[in-house]
Amino acid sequence: MSTMTGRLYGVGTGPGDPELLTLKAVRAIGEADVLAYFAKAGRSGNGRAIVEGLLKPGMTELPLYYPVTTEIDKEHDDYKGQITGFYDASADAVAAHLAAGRTVAILSEGDPMFYGSYMHLHVRLAHRFPTEVIPGITAMSGCWSLSGLPIVQGDDVLSVLPGTMAEGELERRLGDTQAAVIMKVGRNLPKIRRALASAGRLGEAVYVERGTTPSSMSIRLSEKLDDTAPYFSLVLVPGWGGRA
Amino acid sequence: MSTMTGRLYGVGTGPGDPELLTLKAVRAIGEADVLAYFAKAGRSGNGRAIVEGLLKPGMTELPLYYPVTTEIDKEHDDYKGQITGFYDASADAVAAHLAAGRTVAILSEGDPMFYGSYMHLHVRLAHRFPTEVIPGITAMSGCWSLSGLPIVQGDDVLSVLPGTMAEGELERRLGDTQAAVIMKVGRNLPKIRRALASAGRLGEAVYVERGTTPSSMSIRLSEKLDDTAPYFSLVLVPGWGGRA
Repeated sequence: MSTMTGRLYGVGTGPGDPELLTLKAVRAIGEADVLAYFAKAGRSGNGRAIVEGLLKPGMTELPLYYPVTTEIDKEHDDYKGQITGFYDASADAVAAHLAAGRTVAILSEGDPMFYGSYMHLHVRLAHRFPTEVIPGITAMSGCWSLSGLPIVQGDDVLSVLPGTMAEGELERRLGDTQAAVIMKVGRNLPKIRRALASAGRLGEAVYVERGTTPSSMSIRLSEKLDDTAPYFSLVLVPGWGGRA
Repeated sequence: MSTMTGRLYGVGTGPGDPELLTLKAVRAIGEADVLAYFAKAGRSGNGRAIVEGLLKPGMTELPLYYPVTTEIDKEHDDYKGQITGFYDASADAVAAHLAAGRTVAILSEGDPMFYGSYMHLHVRLAHRFPTEVIPGITAMSGCWSLSGLPIVQGDDVLSVLPGTMAEGELERRLGDTQAAVIMKVGRNLPKIRRALASAGRLGEAVYVERGTTPSSMSIRLSEKLDDTAPYFSLVLVPGWGGRA
């Protein structure tokens, strides 16, 4: 039995534009024997689409398909058990390759340690195998760059807030920070608008959809007339108003 | 007189490791006729050091030297006037190249719109010249990746806090967030320790120095016995404790 194990890379792919991959991410994918990525059943995932141009002939692909859970409440024990089992099984599948001496790159959209599914494998594998996490450009950074929007300067506080938060809580936090990024917008948009208005920040807010992809769109939230938004759209509230 | 102006790139260089440049940053530097960067007088700056291997023969360098202000209070009008004048003059120097049809890449350590000096030139130039901001890996992202530290997951709130903040305010905010990044540590470290302890978060905190450079160091803050820290060190408080 070989005593050489493979190397694990947690690779941030950035927010969508393949040119926003780092040189280190490109190298890691080039070194990898196995490319692993999370995806919805029947789809190949955004992470894989971003690195498509880097795939080598003969590379083993290991898609990790999320269990279909649309009917189950995320707070329910059945869901938690199913998703924990899925991460356990996914880690086992990656571990088998590593134990056989193969280098595995696990793709993570954006930045692996910043709201990424990769973390669930990292905590199961990093203490057992040589592991390197390669940071990626976050979606929020892609969005504020695309919008040309200075987000924080000097001693500004930045709050990253999930749009799933209760309205009163969101309003309180928006009133207690210089800059904010609101994630997970989707069907929370009407609530987010109300919280921004109550906190007196609606006029500053910028809505960004599909940042850094060819179909990206950025608009002042006050000028967006409808409330349809994909789940992964963002609202940016810059802290850096008027100063120069 | 030519009607062709040059293109302005605000280029994020990432936190220090040249391999953490994006492909887009490398391309922009390759296209640039002029490489501009902020630096302290008599030094060439960290941004330039990161891209050193990409410099082309014949490339014009435009170092923008900060005025020497060690003797002046940052809140004093003299300082504000001097620094505003410096940004005005720097923007003029860049504008002269752009107006003459030369493409200019302005380097910004980390991410240009995230606490970067580049913003001061962006607000003076982006409405006058074709401009693209190329996001970079932030120092905080480099640090949590290096430390293998999952920072936020699910519906976690992340607060980015300057270590310059008053102790009570820092304590309050540390007690009101799942995850935190404390920037500008330096001589604020004793105060940061006390605020973390009062908020009950000292045990989770990780101190990172010179993240992603060859001399980087990461340690639990509770195990760091002295209070010496460079200004650009960070303290990370992960939100993602124990979950898997």
